[in-house]
Formats: sequence, structure tokens, C-alpha cells
Amino acid sequence: MGTIKAAVAPSKISVKQWVDRVLDDAKFNVPAAKASAYAPSNIALSKYWGKREASFNLPVTGSVSISLAGHGTHTKLCVIDGPKHQVTLNGKGLDERDSFVIKLSQWLDRVLPNNLKLGVTTVNTVPTAAGLASSASGFAALTLATNNLMGWNLPQHQLSALARLGSGSASRSLWHGFVKWHAGQLPDGSDSVAHPLEQQWPNLRVGLLTVSSHTKAVSSREGMARTIATSKLYKQWPQQAQDDLATIEAAIAMGDFETMAKTAEHNAMSMHATMAAAWPPLVYWQPESLAQMQKVWQLRAQGLPLYLTMDAGPNLKLLFEAKHQADVVSAFETVEIITPFS
Amino acid sequence: MGTIKAAVAPSKISVKQWVDRVLDDAKFNVPAAKASAYAPSNIALSKYWGKREASFNLPVTGSVSISLAGHGTHTKLCVIDGPKHQVTLNGKGLDERDSFVIKLSQWLDRVLPNNLKLGVTTVNTVPTAAGLASSASGFAALTLATNNLMGWNLPQHQLSALARLGSGSASRSLWHGFVKWHAGQLPDGSDSVAHPLEQQWPNLRVGLLTVSSHTKAVSSREGMARTIATSKLYKQWPQQAQDDLATIEAAIAMGDFETMAKTAEHNAMSMHATMAAAWPPLVYWQPESLAQMQKVWQLRAQGLPLYLTMDAGPNLKLLFEAKHQADVVSAFETVEIITPFS
Repeated sequence: MGTIKAAVAPSKISVKQWVDRVLDDAKFNVPAAKASAYAPSNIALSKYWGKREASFNLPVTGSVSISLAGHGTHTKLCVIDGPKHQVTLNGKGLDERDSFVIKLSQWLDRVLPNNLKLGVTTVNTVPTAAGLASSASGFAALTLATNNLMGWNLPQHQLSALARLGSGSASRSLWHGFVKWHAGQLPDGSDSVAHPLEQQWPNLRVGLLTVSSHTKAVSSREGMARTIATSKLYKQWPQQAQDDLATIEAAIAMGDFETMAKTAEHNAMSMHATMAAAWPPLVYWQPESLAQMQKVWQLRAQGLPLYLTMDAGPNLKLLFEAKHQADVVSAFETVEIITPFS
Repeated sequence: MGTIKAAVAPSKISVKQWVDRVLDDAKFNVPAAKASAYAPSNIALSKYWGKREASFNLPVTGSVSISLAGHGTHTKLCVIDGPKHQVTLNGKGLDERDSFVIKLSQWLDRVLPNNLKLGVTTVNTVPTAAGLASSASGFAALTLATNNLMGWNLPQHQLSALARLGSGSASRSLWHGFVKWHAGQLPDGSDSVAHPLEQQWPNLRVGLLTVSSHTKAVSSREGMARTIATSKLYKQWPQQAQDDLATIEAAIAMGDFETMAKTAEHNAMSMHATMAAAWPPLVYWQPESLAQMQKVWQLRAQGLPLYLTMDAGPNLKLLFEAKHQADVVSAFETVEIITPFS
């Protein structure tokens, strides 16, 4: 339950064995005592919703995202003398039983030599667990920082796969701009990796409308599992996601904002629809989310080329072009504008 | 666009020809100068969402409903001397260009002898066009009153088919209690008729939570057409609707409230999901609807066996048993309680 049957055979090796193979092949530099990295958050334009395999975090379909420039995660690592990793999040030391610490420690223990323990200092510039994908930028920054610390010198696609083990969408957060994550076909996920698209859209704007920054009651992981197990409408999702991805990728290549943004909104609404049709019903929207969604639709009906997307949370992300920024700011007082290609 | 291809050949006769055949076979009594009838509103437990044929109002799937006892439509008819039907709705004379008058006149002109014009006095005890299916009780009451006025003496299944021509769900509003509408297979819809189920559930309660009684911006007819034409998730709906109908019918026969109500909520949420996945997105919920839905889910998580269903509108209908009425009334101050088997 919670995953759909893979079209390929299950992996013959464990996640740990896969990690060991990747690191065995790495040409190490000298490890450092300290390292740091930054990774941007990202917003999927065609969504990742559903795993074909849970231990490797392999998606049912590919996806494409836009990274959020200065909104993301700064992570510093240092080697410490102690029995456990020590994690500080946004200036606050976390208890070892905190679920974030548990996930992070599990990832570190898979990739580090035995008994090497780290102090991890993480600062998110986006609210944690409010649908702004802080786990994506978090695991991407952790992967980049660990690569630096350990002197792995791994190629980018392998870093993407390592980040994916922590959080699926982290595979896309290693780069700025548009990023495509290939679903892949291999049982161990070696080909389920992201790469940046070359297109630059300096006029693209993303608006963040934060309805709530509270931790959501149902995690994305749990939400995906419930949707796959109980939502009959989900059966159509993989085909739609695949079609939407192709449409959006072509629109990005053509510089066609309207097609890109319209398909992104349709894709996001359809993803939320698969959740509403789950049992028990899964609705991440808050009443205020719906009020803001209606406002977007009303403005669009009045002629403003403004579109929305939403992840597994209550917050809206607006998509529009620079020339309409003044209209958007005047309609949404609290909107935070991001310039992805600044 | 707007209808899916019928599995059967299109009808060889028009709606008017079908009506003429039915009425030719009727054993008429003497027509009267005046007649009246009442029909209850009904709430679908497994929904009617999508037409396989638009002129006869033939549904993609069957459906099952519960009628709302005293909530419905009273209609009085009298023969008048004039060029046009005259319609009074809730005490207010309507202009001939009113869409309600146009729909009603079209139905009357199909079934009445040439040049016979009626005065129609209709009183709804439910808000018009707010998702409380006043068109269902309206066309059912009109059908019953016309049968009385004209002395048709038609059998019930033919009255159900005639009511369906005005509004699909009107086929179910001729009776109190649980009513099943068969999808049917014939091109002219002769077998797409409803009949009452024999089971009586005196302990069943329906709670009406009216969020808005404004006329909705997108009619059910338009909403269905848009959903079928643009919602990829809709492809799964016919199978789910058919399965849910079978589950609910069995639960009604077994007296199994939880299965009936749970399946009804899952069915309604899935129907709304097919709409959210349409383009442009179709969301009948208001922010206040979502607040009330969350309240229902919260109460249920706390142990109250309370379920909801919603039609193509912003209002909630609660499903619960008599023993929990006090809890429901205390949680929802404005709820209106209906006893379907009173």
C-alpha cells in the first residue's frame, strides 16, 4: 500500500549498497573539517505526486520545476566529537527525537564513514513544512555541503540521486532556473536524476502568497501514499503528469508563458483533485487559500494573465510576467515577489 | 464537446416524437381546469455527474438519492387564455425571458396540445439554484401536476422519464425516501428512469448547512459539460460512480449507515475532484464551505459518526443518525435538520 507497482523489477541492492557503490567510484579530494552550501527551494510546474518505489524515492512520473533564487537553505557542516549528529535549525538546537533530525541523521549515516558525526547548522529562508518545499532545498544543500566536506567531487547527476534519497524534490534543488527530473527506469534509481534546462526567462516572476506557515497535519509522503492507495481518480494522474510535463517543457523552450503557466495551474489543480478523492479526503487548502484562488481566477477573467500553482500545503504560488508585477502587487498586498533569473 | 460518446446508437426519434408516443399510449381521463402537486427535493448519495446524451438528459451512470421530505416544490397549474405560459416563482411573476421560464415553457410545449397555455405557480421551500436541487423538485412537481391536469394517468416510470427531460435529477424527485435512477441503455431513454427503494430508515437524519443561497455562477449542466470536455481525471469517474452506487445500494439494504454515509462522502468529494481538475478549474466551494467541511472531518476524527455530501454548489449536507442529533446541532448552530422518513 502506498506505492504503485513498478514497471521494472525491484532493486537487487539496498539503498546503502547503492550509496556505497557511488562513493567507491568517487575520486576523493582531501576531506575538510568544515564546509557549507546553499540550495534554492523549487516549485514544481508539473508535479511529483506518487512514488513507484519508496526506499529509493523513485517517482511515478518525471517533473519540471523553477527554483526560487534566494529562497532556500544555507547549510554548514563541521566534524564533531560525539556519538550523534547535532542539528540546529534556524538558530534552534533540535532534540535527537525530532523527526527532522531523524531523517537527516539517517541520510548522513548512509553516506558518511562509520562513527563520523557532524554538526549541521541549517537556516531556511522559507517557512518549514508549509508547502514551500523546505525539505527539497534542505536535502539539496545538505548533499552539496557533504560533497564539499568529504571531498567527493561527485558528478552532478549522482549528487541529484543522493539528494533524492532524502526528499524526492531535493533532486531538483541543486540548480537555479528550470530543472527537469527524469522519472528513470532503473530499479536502483541511478537514472532518476535531475538536470537544469538551458532556457533563461528573465521576465518570469513567482509570487508567494503565504496563507499559513504552520506545519501541515499530513506530510507529503503520507499524502502521496494515501492518495495512491485510496483515490480512484489517481489512476489517470500518471498519464496527465507525463503529458503536462511534455507540454511545459516545450512551452519553456518556445518562451510561451501562457501555455507554461496554464498547464502548471491545471496540473496543480489536478494533483489536488487526486487528493480530494482520497479516503479520508485529503484537502491541504485552507478557507483563506480558496479565497485567494478565487481572487486569481477573478483577476484572470478580467484579463490579467495570472496563474497559480500549489504544492501539498495551503500556500499559493503565483506565476506571471514582469510587465504585470504592479497589478499583482496591488491586488495581493502580502505577496512576496521572486525573480528566479535575477 | 460536453457529452461523451454513447455506447449505443443515437436515438432515431426526437424528444418531441418520444413524448408524443408516450402520450399517445396514455389512457386519458378528463382534463381539469386546475391541478396541483408537490415533489420533494433530493440529495444524491451517489451522484449524477455527466450526460451520455444531452437532448434526452441521459446520464453516464446510475445514481441513488434520499428525498428531503417537506423540502421541495409545490406547483399549481391552471389553464389560461393567452399566447404564453405565465410563471410565478415564490410569489413573484417572472418575465418570459427569464431562463427558468424558458426551460419550463419548453417542457410544457413538448407535452401539451398546441395552443394550450398554463399559469404556473411554483413555491420552493429550498433556495433556488444554490446546490439544493430546486430544479429536481421543480420539474418533478411540474410533471406530477401536469399529469393531474391533463388526466394522463401515466405509469410512474413514464412520469420519471418525462421529469428527466426537464432536469436529470428530477427523475428521482417523484418519490419520498431512497430512490434509484437507472442509467438505462436505450437511445431514447425509455429505460433511464427512477424507482423508489423499499427500505425505510426512520433514524436517518440529513442536516442542511447553507453557506450561500446565491445563484451559482456555473450551472450544473455547464459544469458537467466542462468537466467531461477538459478533466482528464473524469475518465475514472464512471467506474467509481458505478461501484459507489452498488456499495450504497447494498448498504441501504443492510441498514449499514457507516458504509452508506462514508461511500456517499467519498463519492461527492470525488465528483468535486473531477471538477477541480477541469479547465478552467471549477470549484463550487466557498471558503466558508471548506471551513465547515474541515469541522465535519475534525468532529469525525474525534469519534462522531458524521459525514457530508455536496452537490454542484457551496452548501453542505450532513448525514448522521438520530442518536447523534444533539451533538450535530450543538456543533453547527445554523444546521437545518431533515427527517426523510418522518
